Amino acid sequence: MAMSCDHPDLLPLDEALARLWAALPAPASSEVRADRDDPAADLAAMDGVALRSEDGRAPRRLLGTLYAGDDPAAFTVTPGTAVRIMTGAALPAGADAILPVEQLHETEGQIHPQAIPEAGDHVRRRGGQACAGDLLLPADQPLNVARTALRAWVGRPLPPPRRIRVAVASTGDELVTDPLPHQIRDSNGPMLAALAHALGADVERRPALPDDPETLAAALRNPGGVRILMTSGGVSMGEHDHLPAVLKDLGATILFHKIRLKPGKPMLAAQLGDLLVLGLPGNPVSAYLNALLFLPVALAKLEGRALPDPWRRARLAAPVKHKGDRPLLHPCSLEDGQLHPLPGKGSADLVTLARADAFAWIEAPGQEAGARVRYLTVM
Amino acid sequence: MAMSCDHPDLLPLDEALARLWAALPAPASSEVRADRDDPAADLAAMDGVALRSEDGRAPRRLLGTLYAGDDPAAFTVTPGTAVRIMTGAALPAGADAILPVEQLHETEGQIHPQAIPEAGDHVRRRGGQACAGDLLLPADQPLNVARTALRAWVGRPLPPPRRIRVAVASTGDELVTDPLPHQIRDSNGPMLAALAHALGADVERRPALPDDPETLAAALRNPGGVRILMTSGGVSMGEHDHLPAVLKDLGATILFHKIRLKPGKPMLAAQLGDLLVLGLPGNPVSAYLNALLFLPVALAKLEGRALPDPWRRARLAAPVKHKGDRPLLHPCSLEDGQLHPLPGKGSADLVTLARADAFAWIEAPGQEAGARVRYLTVM
Repeated sequence: MAMSCDHPDLLPLDEALARLWAALPAPASSEVRADRDDPAADLAAMDGVALRSEDGRAPRRLLGTLYAGDDPAAFTVTPGTAVRIMTGAALPAGADAILPVEQLHETEGQIHPQAIPEAGDHVRRRGGQACAGDLLLPADQPLNVARTALRAWVGRPLPPPRRIRVAVASTGDELVTDPLPHQIRDSNGPMLAALAHALGADVERRPALPDDPETLAAALRNPGGVRILMTSGGVSMGEHDHLPAVLKDLGATILFHKIRLKPGKPMLAAQLGDLLVLGLPGNPVSAYLNALLFLPVALAKLEGRALPDPWRRARLAAPVKHKGDRPLLHPCSLEDGQLHPLPGKGSADLVTLARADAFAWIEAPGQEAGARVRYLTVM
Repeated sequence: MAMSCDHPDLLPLDEALARLWAALPAPASSEVRADRDDPAADLAAMDGVALRSEDGRAPRRLLGTLYAGDDPAAFTVTPGTAVRIMTGAALPAGADAILPVEQLHETEGQIHPQAIPEAGDHVRRRGGQACAGDLLLPADQPLNVARTALRAWVGRPLPPPRRIRVAVASTGDELVTDPLPHQIRDSNGPMLAALAHALGADVERRPALPDDPETLAAALRNPGGVRILMTSGGVSMGEHDHLPAVLKDLGATILFHKIRLKPGKPMLAAQLGDLLVLGLPGNPVSAYLNALLFLPVALAKLEGRALPDPWRRARLAAPVKHKGDRPLLHPCSLEDGQLHPLPGKGSADLVTLARADAFAWIEAPGQEAGARVRYLTVM
C-alpha cells in the first residue's frame, strides 16, 4: 500500500550516508616513515653561492657550479673560495651558508659579498624535515593526492589510481527513444552516467530495464564486473516498483530504504555480494540529488579517500516556505554569493534543475530571507 | 639574474586564472528547446485511481490498470467507472483527477472515495512544464550534469563525455629512483598524475625530463596527442630553469609567468599550438597548490563547464603572521569547522602538505585568531 504522507521515522540523510560509508570497505593504507634523513644532505634553499660564513665579506674565487642533483664531492670550499649553487643542490664540504645571488657582485670569477653571511643561511639542513625512521603519517589515514606524493617521496609509491567501475541503468516501461505522448525518453540514464563520469568513475551505461522482476533479478545477478550499479526508478511503492523485493529475494543486504529528504524519500542502497546498488528514485530531480549525495561518498570510501563534505553555506535572498516533515532541497541560483530560490515545479522539473546553481537545505516550516543555510552546488 | 624579493607588479592570482580561462576554447553548446509539450499528456502525479471528479464520492467500478508508459486509449472513464493508475501514467479519456490510493477503499473491483476529488487533483497537466518550442536553456550556457539530462529529455542527447588527456612530467637532473644523498625521488610526478586523475583527466605520466633545453624542446614539440602538459620545475630563474626560454623559442604564447602567490611565484602557463603547458614550480607544496588552482580551471573550460570556485570560508583558530607582499597559502587542519594553522616548513615541506586539510589565504601582515578567511580544501 503506497504511503505518501511524511513519516518522522524515515532515516535522516546523515544516518543514511553514515550507513553507506560504514558498509563499504576502504583499501588498507600502511604508515609512512622516512626511509632516510629528509633532506638527506644539507641543501641550498636559494640560488647563490655556497661559502664559509666565517670569512665574512671577503671576496671568494668561484670553483665551479653545483646544480640540483650534482655530487658535491666535486668541490671543497676552503678560505677564499666559493661554489656557485642552485636551489636544491647539496652543499660542498667546507661550506656552511648560501649567499643569495641578490646579495653579491661578481667579477671575473670572483664574488664580492654585499652582506655578511651567517652559518646556516638559506640552507635546508640534513634531517631538518625528518630523520630516517620518523613516522610521517600513521597507518589507515585517508588517501589524498599529497599523501600519494609522500609515499613516492620515501620510495613506496602507490600503483597508479584506477577508476571505480559504475554501471547506470534506468528502469521503466515508459522509457523509449521515440516517445508517444504517454511515453518519455530516458534522461536519468545520461544524467547519472554524466555524474558518475564527472566524479571520476569508469561508467558503463546500460539499456533501461523494463518493469519486470525477472529481468531486474537477472541484471542484478550478473553485474558484469562493476562495483556500483546505479538504477533510477522502481524503488517507490507502486505496483511496478520491484527493486526492493527483487533485492531481498536475491539475499541482498538492504543498507537503507526510504530517507527523510524531499525529494528522495524512496532512496535505497543495498549490497549484493560485491555489488553496491544505489537505487535512486525515478523522478529526475530526485535521482539527481540523491546521486549527488550518495555516489561521492561511496566512491570516496572505495578509493580510500576521506568522507567528502559537499555542503557550503550562504544566505537566502528570499524566503522559502516548506510544509511537511522531510527537509527540502530547494533549487536556487547563486548570485553575489546569495541563494536566490527558483520557482521549481517539484521533483519532475528537469528545466529548473538545469537552471539551478545550487540546492538549499530547508527545514519546515521554511526559512526567512537572510537566513544562512547550507547548500549543495550542482555539478 | 635571479630575483627573490617580492614584486608588487607580479600578476595577481585571479588575473592569472582569468587569462587561462579566456585563452582556452569551450565547446559550443546550442540552445535547448522543448521538442513537444512537457508533459506530452496529462500524467498521474501519484499512485491512485483516475476518475471523473464531478461524480464526487460515488463508488466506481475499476476498468483496469494503467502503468507508466501504457497507452491510455485502452480505457475510457465514464460515470461510475475509474482506472487504477500509477505515477507517470497518462490519464485515460474521461478522467480529470487522480484520487490517491490513501484516499480510497477498495472492495471487489470497486473503489469507494474517502475524499471528494477536484478536477486536476494530482495531475501533471500536458504542457504544465513547457510547451513544444519553448526555450528551456539559451545557447552557450556552461555544461553540467543536469543540462546533459535536459538535452537527452528533448531528444538531443550529447555524445558520452570524454576525458581530457593530460601528460605529467617533472623536470630535474636530481630526480632518480634510487637517490644518493644529493639526489631525490620524483614525488611531483605521481602527485600531479594523481591530482589530474582525481580531477577526471585521462593521465599519462611521463619520465622526468632532464635539465636540458634540447630534450625539453623535443618533448614540447611532440606532445603525443595530449591537450595539457603539466611540468614541475624549470620555471624559476636558476641557470637550469630552461622552460620559459624553450617555450619562447618554440613560438609559444606565454599566458603568464610569475604570479603574486606564495608559494608559487614562478608559475607559468603557455599555449603551444593546441597544447596547454602548465609549468608548475618544482617545490612540492608549490607544485601541488598551483596545480590545484589552475588545472581545474583549464579542465572546466575545455569541457564546457562553468568556472569552478574552489574557495570556502572559515575562521582561523590561531593567528598567522605573514611578511612579504605576496598572499600566502598557509597549511591548516580543519577541526570543528575552524582552520588550525600548521607549523609548516615552507614550499618543500611534503610532510605538512600530507597532514593538511586546507590552505588558508593570508594577506600580509597576517591574520588574527578568529578572522574569517578563504581557504582551499586539499584533494
